[in-house]
Amino acid sequence: MTDFFSGIAPVKYEGADSTNPLAFRHYNPDEVVMGKRMEDHLRFAIAYWHSFAWEGGDPFGGQTFVRPWHPQDQMATAKVKADAAFEMFDILGQPYFCWHDADIRPEGDSFGESLKNFEEIIDYFEEKMSTRKVKLLWGTANMFSHRRWMSGASTNPDPEVFAYSAATVKTCMDATKKLGGENYVLWGGREGYETLLNTDMGRELDHMGRFLNMVVDYKHKIGFEGQILVEPKPQEPSKHQYDFDAATCYGFLQKYGLENEVKLNLEQGHAILAGHSFEHEIATAAALGVLGSIDMNRNDYQSGWDTDQFPNNVPEVALAYYHILKDGGFTQGGTNFDAKLRRQSLDADDLIAAHVGGMDICARGLKAAAAMIEDGGLEDAIKDRYAGWDTPEAQAMLGSDLATIFDKVAGEGINPAPKSGRQEMLENYVNRFV
Amino acid sequence: MTDFFSGIAPVKYEGADSTNPLAFRHYNPDEVVMGKRMEDHLRFAIAYWHSFAWEGGDPFGGQTFVRPWHPQDQMATAKVKADAAFEMFDILGQPYFCWHDADIRPEGDSFGESLKNFEEIIDYFEEKMSTRKVKLLWGTANMFSHRRWMSGASTNPDPEVFAYSAATVKTCMDATKKLGGENYVLWGGREGYETLLNTDMGRELDHMGRFLNMVVDYKHKIGFEGQILVEPKPQEPSKHQYDFDAATCYGFLQKYGLENEVKLNLEQGHAILAGHSFEHEIATAAALGVLGSIDMNRNDYQSGWDTDQFPNNVPEVALAYYHILKDGGFTQGGTNFDAKLRRQSLDADDLIAAHVGGMDICARGLKAAAAMIEDGGLEDAIKDRYAGWDTPEAQAMLGSDLATIFDKVAGEGINPAPKSGRQEMLENYVNRFV
Amino acid sequence: MTDFFSGIAPVKYEGADSTNPLAFRHYNPDEVVMGKRMEDHLRFAIAYWHSFAWEGGDPFGGQTFVRPWHPQDQMATAKVKADAAFEMFDILGQPYFCWHDADIRPEGDSFGESLKNFEEIIDYFEEKMSTRKVKLLWGTANMFSHRRWMSGASTNPDPEVFAYSAATVKTCMDATKKLGGENYVLWGGREGYETLLNTDMGRELDHMGRFLNMVVDYKHKIGFEGQILVEPKPQEPSKHQYDFDAATCYGFLQKYGLENEVKLNLEQGHAILAGHSFEHEIATAAALGVLGSIDMNRNDYQSGWDTDQFPNNVPEVALAYYHILKDGGFTQGGTNFDAKLRRQSLDADDLIAAHVGGMDICARGLKAAAAMIEDGGLEDAIKDRYAGWDTPEAQAMLGSDLATIFDKVAGEGINPAPKSGRQEMLENYVNRFV
Amino acid sequence: MTDFFSGIAPVKYEGADSTNPLAFRHYNPDEVVMGKRMEDHLRFAIAYWHSFAWEGGDPFGGQTFVRPWHPQDQMATAKVKADAAFEMFDILGQPYFCWHDADIRPEGDSFGESLKNFEEIIDYFEEKMSTRKVKLLWGTANMFSHRRWMSGASTNPDPEVFAYSAATVKTCMDATKKLGGENYVLWGGREGYETLLNTDMGRELDHMGRFLNMVVDYKHKIGFEGQILVEPKPQEPSKHQYDFDAATCYGFLQKYGLENEVKLNLEQGHAILAGHSFEHEIATAAALGVLGSIDMNRNDYQSGWDTDQFPNNVPEVALAYYHILKDGGFTQGGTNFDAKLRRQSLDADDLIAAHVGGMDICARGLKAAAAMIEDGGLEDAIKDRYAGWDTPEAQAMLGSDLATIFDKVAGEGINPAPKSGRQEMLENYVNRFV
Repeated sequence: MTDFFSGIAPVKYEGADSTNPLAFRHYNPDEVVMGKRMEDHLRFAIAYWHSFAWEGGDPFGGQTFVRPWHPQDQMATAKVKADAAFEMFDILGQPYFCWHDADIRPEGDSFGESLKNFEEIIDYFEEKMSTRKVKLLWGTANMFSHRRWMSGASTNPDPEVFAYSAATVKTCMDATKKLGGENYVLWGGREGYETLLNTDMGRELDHMGRFLNMVVDYKHKIGFEGQILVEPKPQEPSKHQYDFDAATCYGFLQKYGLENEVKLNLEQGHAILAGHSFEHEIATAAALGVLGSIDMNRNDYQSGWDTDQFPNNVPEVALAYYHILKDGGFTQGGTNFDAKLRRQSLDADDLIAAHVGGMDICARGLKAAAAMIEDGGLEDAIKDRYAGWDTPEAQAMLGSDLATIFDKVAGEGINPAPKSGRQEMLENYVNRFV
Repeated sequence: MTDFFSGIAPVKYEGADSTNPLAFRHYNPDEVVMGKRMEDHLRFAIAYWHSFAWEGGDPFGGQTFVRPWHPQDQMATAKVKADAAFEMFDILGQPYFCWHDADIRPEGDSFGESLKNFEEIIDYFEEKMSTRKVKLLWGTANMFSHRRWMSGASTNPDPEVFAYSAATVKTCMDATKKLGGENYVLWGGREGYETLLNTDMGRELDHMGRFLNMVVDYKHKIGFEGQILVEPKPQEPSKHQYDFDAATCYGFLQKYGLENEVKLNLEQGHAILAGHSFEHEIATAAALGVLGSIDMNRNDYQSGWDTDQFPNNVPEVALAYYHILKDGGFTQGGTNFDAKLRRQSLDADDLIAAHVGGMDICARGLKAAAAMIEDGGLEDAIKDRYAGWDTPEAQAMLGSDLATIFDKVAGEGINPAPKSGRQEMLENYVNRFV
Repeated sequence: MTDFFSGIAPVKYEGADSTNPLAFRHYNPDEVVMGKRMEDHLRFAIAYWHSFAWEGGDPFGGQTFVRPWHPQDQMATAKVKADAAFEMFDILGQPYFCWHDADIRPEGDSFGESLKNFEEIIDYFEEKMSTRKVKLLWGTANMFSHRRWMSGASTNPDPEVFAYSAATVKTCMDATKKLGGENYVLWGGREGYETLLNTDMGRELDHMGRFLNMVVDYKHKIGFEGQILVEPKPQEPSKHQYDFDAATCYGFLQKYGLENEVKLNLEQGHAILAGHSFEHEIATAAALGVLGSIDMNRNDYQSGWDTDQFPNNVPEVALAYYHILKDGGFTQGGTNFDAKLRRQSLDADDLIAAHVGGMDICARGLKAAAAMIEDGGLEDAIKDRYAGWDTPEAQAMLGSDLATIFDKVAGEGINPAPKSGRQEMLENYVNRFV
Repeated sequence: MTDFFSGIAPVKYEGADSTNPLAFRHYNPDEVVMGKRMEDHLRFAIAYWHSFAWEGGDPFGGQTFVRPWHPQDQMATAKVKADAAFEMFDILGQPYFCWHDADIRPEGDSFGESLKNFEEIIDYFEEKMSTRKVKLLWGTANMFSHRRWMSGASTNPDPEVFAYSAATVKTCMDATKKLGGENYVLWGGREGYETLLNTDMGRELDHMGRFLNMVVDYKHKIGFEGQILVEPKPQEPSKHQYDFDAATCYGFLQKYGLENEVKLNLEQGHAILAGHSFEHEIATAAALGVLGSIDMNRNDYQSGWDTDQFPNNVPEVALAYYHILKDGGFTQGGTNFDAKLRRQSLDADDLIAAHVGGMDICARGLKAAAAMIEDGGLEDAIKDRYAGWDTPEAQAMLGSDLATIFDKVAGEGINPAPKSGRQEMLENYVNRFV
């Protein structure tokens, strides 16, 4: 036991009127929404990197946090960090967590030493998990922080880095399977370019496509039943990242024959950086059949970089869950808090409160989304708006050709009459629920 | 003859030392660059819409230009406009022009009347073209300005609008073929959505895919040998446009089986709005095999909307042509000036000077690009950087699997050593040429 | 009576459970919040330009709306427009409206004719207002739409335009006073530049400063007791507008000796375009003593231009009113809906519903803001955070000098200990109220 | 002597045809431009922080550079770093350098120990400078990196941090004076806020104003004859920084009575982040009489954060120097390269080449700017455009009032005729020089 969270009791649901900053006011795991427990809908996960590995630095300043598991470059403190992490899981009671290899183990002097450290921590996790309900939503490999990856992982101009990356992913997939993880994620932190002047984009894309095929092959080889997910992001750290957004990823998956094997892990902040709303990315992935999981956070719309703040705007979160529920809800995916404290939020209770607030916002968003679906107002509006397409004539036209349609338009003097899109009405409708 | 350009003589090449604002200082059509005449490399086109149809309005103000072809809602003035346009083509001597149907003919009270107006103008063009060298780079249909298209063309919730759009495109393809056009372009000005609340994105995408297949079928049916091009743009006028950028369009083309039939017409301003550099979009399309043509202009990086300014930054334009030349240069595509005067630039000589300046910038860019290719410095740098991949071992690794690679990395203790990307060196290199 | 709103009854407050799209669910004018009627807090105004003058155009398309007062270039239709406007005021029951001269009267062929038209409409308004409670929040002159203003009004390189602008503002101030207007607003739509290449910024700023001094002098001369307000905006339609944001305006006012005479009319959309949150602009103006009034709307964070949508995000609106209430609330200012329908929202009931939704959002925001102030949680947190400054020692230090402070720091070995900023805690706190 | 730059000879001017990547092709210090040596115009400075202190980290990855002066937390390596720095100054031959205290000395365990380290290095610098021509352009204090400043320096809620900051600035001003520095700079890296929820903006601004007054008082007390400069930046690391841009700083200086005591140090990247062009910020500062010095670099227009790249776009740099020359050129200010290598540019020759390229770009920009001034084309265009204002009638109007002007406009039927702004002509003109 660390004493980092000492004095902080497990967080309970106390209802909307509670003023206790460390109580849930809306997230009530056992409450049933649309026939399913709230916990089973939301499938919350805590991200090891933001909550335990990040030390509060930003581009203009260093560490602000002081933690009992610092410095992080030793196995002994890695275990203290794990102890604290599982203590937080006990306090919050969320069903899942996620990690990168580099979050949980100190870097070694060689691949072998890093692996040894990693496996030791995985065993330590396994033991802790054996007595708790908390499970692994996903594992992933950090292939962007160490200087060896400064020019990319699978897209690196040096084939040795490709090799190192492949070996690393194998170890992380093995560990994910061992811990019962439900997904394996790849985020191409440096899969992109800093300048086209030194980049062979076509070659790099081919290498990335080949790498992802190897990942899928290995999944099948070892019988891992989780989803393989890639995570779109448009920029930062690279000037351009190949997994720009959902639509770009879908094009990439098709080109390399993976659109039925790989799904997407979508993040609010990454959507914003790509010039999209979060619900746009979710609805796009859903329309293309590749919605897998989400990284929940919030991005400052005016920053230009990934701010990874905890979500706090119910109207926005409600629309995200609306599209997730319309797609059938999460099966293997979930809601991972890819969110970090502001660097001035120094204390243990800040860390707990931030997650409590985020979980409550998601709960409010989920309930609002469910209420809209049950009410049916949006679906009805869409059904009405496209009703013309449900006629046999309209369907026949879709199957015909330009010349035939021309004859009809010219012959009958078709002159379409615009109808109101009723956007404000629908926005007002949504505001009845949020 | 109109008197709009009276007193303005045909523009000549006078060399870099000329201070004549209406002379070419760099664009010398017959000068040979990399074995080809400059005119044949650049294949300049004038856009009818900006130069002749737009009246100087912006969201906060109306018409500023006073032209002899105003008001534009009559056939008589449409012909005056055509006269002025061809007078400008004679002055500038560029080899191509482009139009939307709505630029060149007044809207009629019915589909039939609009078509009659259109065909009369097409005949008028044909006659004018018969005595001139100027050719049609591409035609297109304006399916975004009239209120009937406020909710989209092929993606409209009303099937009558789809029909009207199909009939319209047929007429524009017919006219393009009749005039010997070398491409036919589709820009989905309102193919997107204003709000997801009233939108069925999956259905709209399917309709858009079907529509584009009809276009391709019709091309083959009538024996049109030009390229079919779609033009990416991320937003404006719609909140989200489905043809967001080159990578998104490529995914769309694959999904609807069109990646070998349709290419892209890329615009600098649209690239910027999507968060990309122009050369990124060009290099992406080239890597994916779908680079077709370009709309040359320049966008204010800080505006957030499509400013469609004339290009004026040689270093940027040089990189665009560098990637075009690396892809083999234009075959059927070309350089269309999708650029308009600032609304305070009221005079006829402003219109000429703007094109002269734009053509000179492109000429400087082309020559710089060609010099870089002939010098080979960038290609050599890339070749060196990826040289490791050219070994049999590296190629064998690409064909292997995670477990095999893991064994090698773990067994041999591979520990890649980062090498400098030399970005500033390469940027300095480029500055030797621009 | 027009029949434009026929069948739409006056909007009533029906409470939060109402599903009537044309009822207030939260705006209850007589409900007392912090000791004042809600109507007197919010002081809603309808903007004539968006609701009655704008025809649905955007940069890529023309008119979508069909209204009984079209075409707008005749006195007869200007009166039909006025009839419809006051019918809408009767339906919504809001206490104020606002206009530009160009919204309400057709442009004449000369200054004199435009003035005659304007005065006739002002008389027509006066008569209508005599039997209604609706009042004028502010009047203003449109000095950006007509081509004479393409290069600015008071900052125009042509002194005749300055003169025309001065004469115009006089007539609008006279009319505002005649109608009992409570403020007079200047928005420098084209007071800025398109390119520095043709601009003498120092001279233009001096002219703008002189112009505003003339306005203030005239206010005093005619005994107008309303506030003079300027409205910050960073760009669009100009590349750069001189009234960039609140802080810039404050610097301008100081330079020209007007900081005690002129206040600011702040708009959410303009704040966003300047890279600020709305509450930032409000808090800045309040801190500088120049908060006057607001233009309420919402801007797409990802558009780059002024989208002027109806507000629909309660958490954001609540923070805006929080800072307004902290500044003492509106006295002469108010909440003007500088918001327009989306151009696909064609119908009369769209126009009513949009305002109903906006008024409800503001009411929710106001109530949340008042509740936070009454609870005192935020103020307490700030008081605690700065408590160190309330000591005599801290105040003495502020009055001392670097050398004295150095001696103390070096002598006493002062080593400040960071304290948590508790941002997430405070964000969670706000979410208890919204 | 370190061996870091071993094998790299002093950089010479070799002329535009040189292909030597480590030669100046355009920067020829002794070449006379507009009557002054190029070196004396440009007054280049090297920034210690980017070139020697920064280790290549970014928000997603750590150190990439390997330098003989690592680790930097010891006095011995601080001296190796100084040795390498002066070796680079010898190689580049630029006349100035700049530092923050934290760049040059290891942080101590107390204020006193940090000061002792600092003073030892200042002495070490003084000795090195005694045998070289290189001088100090400016010194400054880093009051944003250490965690004590996480909530601001002079604006910190904790008065002890204000005290620590005051003491720190005193030591840096003393050292700057001792080394003959020509300016002292304050950049408010954390003077701003992360959230308004915990911020008393009015109080913080007052503290910042008081602090700056103390700095000015101390300057006079010790007889420091350099300029005091503040450096605008809109965001990053803070959500909002009080010194947003030039216009905001000017308002701040006026409010605290400092507009005649303090000037601005303007940075290209910061201008971009504020939504401005660099020349806008320069022209604004010049118009307001507060242009002091520049931080030359280039910012990715599409990143949203401070990329601090070396300048490489001549057309942009030329316009910056055009406005500097129009303001009379630098007196005490200069051109500081606030620019850093890309983190993949690992080698010593990358560092030299980056500066060589940047210096050449500035030299090209300066020569183009000088040529435009000598040609006079832009000035003539502006003079013509505003000529109407030079008449006695126009000047009389400026001194009159709204009612008088109204009488004239109404009486004479003034109807201004728009004249072309000729933007494209002027852009083409500029392109003759760049």
